[in-house]
Amino acid sequence: MIGIFDSGIGGLTVVRALRAARPDLSYVYLGDTARAPYGTKSPETIRRYAEDCVDFLLAKGAKAIVIACNTASSLASEHLRARHPGLPIFEVVGPAVRAALAASKKKYIGLIGTRATVGSGVYEKMLKAADPSVEVVARHAQLLIALVEEGWVDAPETASVVAKYIAPIREASVDALILGCTHFPILKGVIGGAMGEGVALIDSAEAVVAEFRATLEADAALEASLDRGGSASYFVSDPTPAFAEIGAAWLGAPLDVQTADIAS
Amino acid sequence: MIGIFDSGIGGLTVVRALRAARPDLSYVYLGDTARAPYGTKSPETIRRYAEDCVDFLLAKGAKAIVIACNTASSLASEHLRARHPGLPIFEVVGPAVRAALAASKKKYIGLIGTRATVGSGVYEKMLKAADPSVEVVARHAQLLIALVEEGWVDAPETASVVAKYIAPIREASVDALILGCTHFPILKGVIGGAMGEGVALIDSAEAVVAEFRATLEADAALEASLDRGGSASYFVSDPTPAFAEIGAAWLGAPLDVQTADIAS
Repeated sequence: MIGIFDSGIGGLTVVRALRAARPDLSYVYLGDTARAPYGTKSPETIRRYAEDCVDFLLAKGAKAIVIACNTASSLASEHLRARHPGLPIFEVVGPAVRAALAASKKKYIGLIGTRATVGSGVYEKMLKAADPSVEVVARHAQLLIALVEEGWVDAPETASVVAKYIAPIREASVDALILGCTHFPILKGVIGGAMGEGVALIDSAEAVVAEFRATLEADAALEASLDRGGSASYFVSDPTPAFAEIGAAWLGAPLDVQTADIAS
Repeated sequence: MIGIFDSGIGGLTVVRALRAARPDLSYVYLGDTARAPYGTKSPETIRRYAEDCVDFLLAKGAKAIVIACNTASSLASEHLRARHPGLPIFEVVGPAVRAALAASKKKYIGLIGTRATVGSGVYEKMLKAADPSVEVVARHAQLLIALVEEGWVDAPETASVVAKYIAPIREASVDALILGCTHFPILKGVIGGAMGEGVALIDSAEAVVAEFRATLEADAALEASLDRGGSASYFVSDPTPAFAEIGAAWLGAPLDVQTADIAS
């Protein structure tokens, strides 16, 4: 079983990409909807919530973890690896950093994410560690999460909010922009339009799935340890109607959503 | 001690009004920032969180509770009263309903609130119970919470989002509009502009404070039981910099914010 978690619904974009890449594996997903969003919360609180999510997924039989949330990846992945030595933990920041470095010729890279992700400085640190000549222009785009969750994807107000957040990154003439939140691929068209031609948009969901696939090809023991069967089960810490509705629309099929008692 | 709670920062508008009305009393405030917002969560989860908030405030010595949150008032006030018989619990819905009925001549009343507040139907139920001839036009305006918390109060995008939410209420020709979320008074100018002339805007913070004051005047035993001294202490379940910053701006003085360990 592969355990995947996110603060809420955004990580379903990662589930969709994982199931497309490896339909033979079995997945268990947890959205921590009782405490979402994570992006406005403190590092300590995000780490505590991420611990709860991993503990729940391990109890459900997960043999590997995918942190399908940029905020938790930025603030909790080192903490979780130290807490669970030997457990394969995939996260979205490293793969997105490597994909951005591969895509950027000018080594001018933009980043948008939640307040917590951008505030952590983790993306800049990893980009500069890999290539000290890289210039990074990072801006939080916190409002986009609510706009996506409320379904205002095609609204002119959303285009205008995107344009405002993007302006300093666009002016910096980057040639790659990291979509550092799992909600943002939903707005790829709007963000791409605001950035203009010649800018690669780096989707962290696609990036982590590519690395997940490559890791399994290289690690026969891990590959052999994983359950087959192609099942997927979905848990949320708060059963709101919105999760099942939006999730079914994103995944193209009705979701049987169960409640995870992790936030009591 | 008066205990006041909200899902986060919005309830500070109630604290400001309470302290202006009764500066001699002592207050303890709890913002459940670790689990905010409440307005997108399920009724069961909102009730559980509200229980935690009340338990914390009672442990701090509160002799009366003010639920400074429309979502918790709509979904948890009956539950909390049943759980704490004899404890004076003020909530914002009843006072706002009475203020709206007093302000509306045409008995056409509008309501905006969170998804959870509007979805609960509590406002309509109370309005119709008081006067079956009242017509109510209710719409959630969930995005306004994020727009206020991100400080986009004067942005043209916010005016446009307000206009879209308000349109069906404006078309219904109401003469009173209940601002059914403690964040909305911050947008009073924008909302008033969108509604046009001749519509009374009902601020639930002002309404609950007026009833609080009147209740104390009528209830000498309750009045006598409350601590004097004019102190105020502030707790949050997640210590984010935003709370102290925005809180200081709203209250006009720096806040000493402590951490409440209620969300573990």
